[in-house]
Amino acid sequence: MTIPVAVAPEVPDELRAAIEAGGGELAALADARALVWVSEAGGFPEQLPTGIEWVQLPAAGIEDFVAAGVLERHPGVRFTSAAGAFSATVAEHALALLLAGVRYLPEHLRATTWRQQDFLPHVGTLRGSTVAVVGAGGIGKALIPSLLTLGAEVIAVNRSGRPVTGSGIPDGITTVPAERLDTVWPVADHVVVAAPATPATAHLVGSAELALLRPNSWVINVARGSLIDTEALVAALRAGTIGGAGLDVTDPEPLPDGHPLWALPNVIITPHDSNPPQVRVAAFAAHVRENVRRFAAGDDLLAPVDPSTGY
Amino acid sequence: MTIPVAVAPEVPDELRAAIEAGGGELAALADARALVWVSEAGGFPEQLPTGIEWVQLPAAGIEDFVAAGVLERHPGVRFTSAAGAFSATVAEHALALLLAGVRYLPEHLRATTWRQQDFLPHVGTLRGSTVAVVGAGGIGKALIPSLLTLGAEVIAVNRSGRPVTGSGIPDGITTVPAERLDTVWPVADHVVVAAPATPATAHLVGSAELALLRPNSWVINVARGSLIDTEALVAALRAGTIGGAGLDVTDPEPLPDGHPLWALPNVIITPHDSNPPQVRVAAFAAHVRENVRRFAAGDDLLAPVDPSTGY
Repeated sequence: MTIPVAVAPEVPDELRAAIEAGGGELAALADARALVWVSEAGGFPEQLPTGIEWVQLPAAGIEDFVAAGVLERHPGVRFTSAAGAFSATVAEHALALLLAGVRYLPEHLRATTWRQQDFLPHVGTLRGSTVAVVGAGGIGKALIPSLLTLGAEVIAVNRSGRPVTGSGIPDGITTVPAERLDTVWPVADHVVVAAPATPATAHLVGSAELALLRPNSWVINVARGSLIDTEALVAALRAGTIGGAGLDVTDPEPLPDGHPLWALPNVIITPHDSNPPQVRVAAFAAHVRENVRRFAAGDDLLAPVDPSTGY
Repeated sequence: MTIPVAVAPEVPDELRAAIEAGGGELAALADARALVWVSEAGGFPEQLPTGIEWVQLPAAGIEDFVAAGVLERHPGVRFTSAAGAFSATVAEHALALLLAGVRYLPEHLRATTWRQQDFLPHVGTLRGSTVAVVGAGGIGKALIPSLLTLGAEVIAVNRSGRPVTGSGIPDGITTVPAERLDTVWPVADHVVVAAPATPATAHLVGSAELALLRPNSWVINVARGSLIDTEALVAALRAGTIGGAGLDVTDPEPLPDGHPLWALPNVIITPHDSNPPQVRVAAFAAHVRENVRRFAAGDDLLAPVDPSTGY
């Protein structure tokens, strides 16, 4: 059965397509069983038609909707947030940085002549390599399936050491507790940092850790700049003890003009732009599509809001 | 049961690890049930111990082994080639080029200052985009699972239009016959060319096709330079009617010094280096690992050689 879904206050093209791809069809609010709300909390309808069973909110953090009493006013309606929807976007960025490094794209982009023989020895592959994903929250879990699809071995690092689970992640994937992170560096070809910034994770990657990596290892950071000791990173890059670094976040941030990282040939810096506004649109559309599919199938929805906790 | 596997004439570290990961263990030839041969046809043993049931050869094309009588001398032994083993490497390269383009890495690599606001509007995502994979042979089939994992829609193009099948490819994936390729350009966000070079595929991508793409479309070619009309591509790139091009192959090739493609800011050229020697090692190791696993499980092996046809 096709689910009638309203989108308000306006209908972006991406959402129309997402709803249809998920097995729904666009409907007027009065005829709909679900509402995808794409604006601020302030404009949310005072009362929803009684046919509305589910409301998809547009943000990962929905404290404004809670404060505005939106959930309170509709006790019989299920609300979902966009929590987790944007992890995949950041994970895609991490993969782009890692592949660009491994495939030696920075140097290729500087070339103005063919010189194939110069490039051949420097082109690597993720296939058969070991990638440590340090931090297995939303971003890490979204990245792991891509790495596995490319034939990489993955070592996930989380707090508990219990095998990471998630969509596209096989049971029993190698998972190391953060307290045994020292065992990861010697066996990792590449490292993707995707852990939250806490006192415990500050300078998680320092000179001792970098010294255990390899001359072709790439270090990717899409989490927070504080997780890497920048001075130690610059030293390792200059000494050539690692292959390169892909950084969407830096310390300090913004990275000041003239900082040594700007001038190093094997560094890719993206100015914390892995989840820009227009990409959020596509990510939210994918989230809506999946939730429409789940609603139609009677499955649990992604990111259900617990009215008692408000998130 | 652990399968005893010999590797000769020498044992690269990658293969030892691959055999163990596949459920085998390295053994002397006299004690082995399988042999992975990693050298030329000329040095192949005159007679194999009778315990050898399966031989993995190191090349995709094994005409030298056929000519040297290797298969003929061992009629009771199953031989496998490395056919297909290197497709994944080229597919990974195509993905690296496509992601680098979509994530705007060429311009990022030129930056020496943060200017986040300049970059945000240009960073795209594969998630929710439509990628046409033109040519669904080994490379195309190896690429499709990665695109799907990243949340892209895939339109595969092959000769028959019968849905492409393969590992990691869901049943009934959208597949268009080559004769209806004109219907693909208007709906594709990005195009990956991975078809063989034949008279029918020469200038498959020309000015008419490029005109149907979008200002943020990337065109990737990992097949042969002749499939794209280079002059038309340069014109489209200069006019900004497409987003950019990632080219591992060019026409002419090698691309001569001073060619306009070298100077365009939204072009990534890799000098036909997507499958360099050291990457072949990793790709072959992955092939061996999978075949050891299959041998141990009693499954059909990858790339079995038919003694009657010699490939």
